[in-house]
Amino acid sequence: MPGTFRVGLLGHGTVGSAFATLLEQRAEAIVPVTGLRPELSGVLTRSRGDFEEILSGADLIVEVIGGVEPARDYVLRAMRAGKHVVSANKQLLSQHGEELWACARENAVQLRFEAAVAGVVPVIRVLQESLAAAHVERIHGIVNGTTNYILSEMARSGMSYADALRQAQDLGYAESDPTDDVTGRDAAAKMAILARLAFDTPVHLDQVRYEGIEHITADDIAYAQQFGLGLKLIGTAERVGDGLSVHVHPAFLYGGHPLASVNGPFNAVTVESDAITEITMSGPGAGGPQTASAILGDVISAMIPPATTPETSQALPIVADVQSAFYLHMEVADRPGVLAQVAELLGMQGASIKSVVQQGLGHDARLVMILHPLAESRFYAAVHLIGQLDFMRSSPRAIRVIEEEFV
Amino acid sequence: MPGTFRVGLLGHGTVGSAFATLLEQRAEAIVPVTGLRPELSGVLTRSRGDFEEILSGADLIVEVIGGVEPARDYVLRAMRAGKHVVSANKQLLSQHGEELWACARENAVQLRFEAAVAGVVPVIRVLQESLAAAHVERIHGIVNGTTNYILSEMARSGMSYADALRQAQDLGYAESDPTDDVTGRDAAAKMAILARLAFDTPVHLDQVRYEGIEHITADDIAYAQQFGLGLKLIGTAERVGDGLSVHVHPAFLYGGHPLASVNGPFNAVTVESDAITEITMSGPGAGGPQTASAILGDVISAMIPPATTPETSQALPIVADVQSAFYLHMEVADRPGVLAQVAELLGMQGASIKSVVQQGLGHDARLVMILHPLAESRFYAAVHLIGQLDFMRSSPRAIRVIEEEFV
Repeated sequence: MPGTFRVGLLGHGTVGSAFATLLEQRAEAIVPVTGLRPELSGVLTRSRGDFEEILSGADLIVEVIGGVEPARDYVLRAMRAGKHVVSANKQLLSQHGEELWACARENAVQLRFEAAVAGVVPVIRVLQESLAAAHVERIHGIVNGTTNYILSEMARSGMSYADALRQAQDLGYAESDPTDDVTGRDAAAKMAILARLAFDTPVHLDQVRYEGIEHITADDIAYAQQFGLGLKLIGTAERVGDGLSVHVHPAFLYGGHPLASVNGPFNAVTVESDAITEITMSGPGAGGPQTASAILGDVISAMIPPATTPETSQALPIVADVQSAFYLHMEVADRPGVLAQVAELLGMQGASIKSVVQQGLGHDARLVMILHPLAESRFYAAVHLIGQLDFMRSSPRAIRVIEEEFV
Repeated sequence: MPGTFRVGLLGHGTVGSAFATLLEQRAEAIVPVTGLRPELSGVLTRSRGDFEEILSGADLIVEVIGGVEPARDYVLRAMRAGKHVVSANKQLLSQHGEELWACARENAVQLRFEAAVAGVVPVIRVLQESLAAAHVERIHGIVNGTTNYILSEMARSGMSYADALRQAQDLGYAESDPTDDVTGRDAAAKMAILARLAFDTPVHLDQVRYEGIEHITADDIAYAQQFGLGLKLIGTAERVGDGLSVHVHPAFLYGGHPLASVNGPFNAVTVESDAITEITMSGPGAGGPQTASAILGDVISAMIPPATTPETSQALPIVADVQSAFYLHMEVADRPGVLAQVAELLGMQGASIKSVVQQGLGHDARLVMILHPLAESRFYAAVHLIGQLDFMRSSPRAIRVIEEEFV
């Protein structure tokens, strides 16, 4: 029987309840990784639960109350009691980070906060661990999914800021009071935390200049597209001479920039350093289950010393014949019935044509098609038969197509 | 005086010598993170050094010899002697991983291998830590920078595979014997390691089907562009029923896919799971300094228990006035001399115009320009003066432009 690791949860809103659900779902899978089974030992909401009681019964406290007080008081008391803390609270960390980190060091406990910055994008871990000794030159981040969604929709459809905001609210990507998001203040808090870690220097939210997207017009976006530019709300933290600049502004990017293709309610962060050139990480910026997943990653890390690779707990069969969509390219004699015969052989194997282009080349023709997904073995059986048709001028050429289109 | 952490280095080729340089450069910065100063305690090359001697004088062994033997023997002996090991050796891990990981567990040492898979892209750490208990559904990866460079060049310029390969060789992106890269075997080894970690099931290189890019024509790429598709060499590991499929093939992606915009000698990996939707990470795929940086991240992790946030060791001044390029949008009366007056005010502040579009609107005109970088204070001083010109129809609108274009 594995031992138990007791998690006390402060806050039970969207993120808190998603975390409680995820913890229960994944408890069994966490045992082989950590040797312990995590369980929720107490929950504090506005109307029920007693903080002292939850604290004394927990090995680790998850704080998802948000705001400064009483979250600050609870987190400090938890660490002084020798408990690890995982927090998703960007306001708290960007305004009282130094006090909290000092308290964590004094009490030799872990204070983890991946979920406070970029949703499920593991930028905190990468900065603190992979890049612990890198000399970071600059960070650019899209760290607010609400504003990225609004700007993406304005660019895509030409709609106004007000209409895009209303649509974001209807879809749950923006709060009914969107002030913190659209003014850039939410992004500024996240950039303060990122800059603190990346540049090893204290940064308070008040030191971050920020500007929002309320004044952006669809017209600006359309004009800039003529120059090959796309608009994002960009947080920047960068060395300037011997100092550090941290700010959040709407900014245009050229198409080749790693952040230019990040659309919809996504977050992404690019870290630049001489040794690494740059790393870019992207993923969903918010949402209860995504934030809960980032919190759970932190909880697991607090449960274990640095991982040696755990023994595999299973041996999934390795499958060879999978489904795939295909591109199929054929050089054929240009005569009646060619497409029909090819289509018949494909149809016999269950292959369905999604798009086709035929181009005449004198006596010959080129036939290029995209097929909907089917088992590879059946596709290649059809290709083998097609290759034997007397009107084929060369072997048919097949290449897989990955079909998913993301936002 | 901080204690010393002794690093023994096996192999002194491109990556080994880059690591030795980086370790020396960053040793001082590592002290506040770990409490220890790392130093190179011994180097084994083909012609000099004694393995036993290096082993007995080291706390950790970095293995960058490559290939299976004698690397396997050295790594096993190091772990049996109680030393942590950091390896960049994909052949070794994809063929003897289970034996090595079992040895690490038995001897309670760490075996880290971030640099073996995707260069500086921290996918191993994210899979092992952030996503330790996630139920991963699928991984798609561009894990070979050589082939991604070749395919990007074929798409960009229409050149043949042979010409693009030669160009990659000239630029140092491809070896003189490129077989492992262009046949997909290198990518297959990396996908075996990724699949092992993500799906918690043993995967041997021999179980990974792979296909290379030698048969791809510029024609295929051009045709597929008509369908909105771009070609990449994609490694896939995904659940299929109750099994696992791991394979590497050239594959077309639609423009919206997170991997579609990864061009040049870059690596990128997308991890999909219900809870997180998907995370994408990208960065340079290879190169001595980049690989050395990934190795150093692993060395630092082996030096410390999980990080509490270290005390800041400095306090950089926070800078407010930085350089930026700008987009400037003006509605003006359509009369002679308008552009000249605007340009003069800009020029007085040192602002230089990169592009300009002027559009007539009856009696009025719209003037949109992109400016080269200048100090923000000077730019806004110019905008203030421009706003007071009598031909302005409304306040000028300014938005930052981030200028970097990546490959």
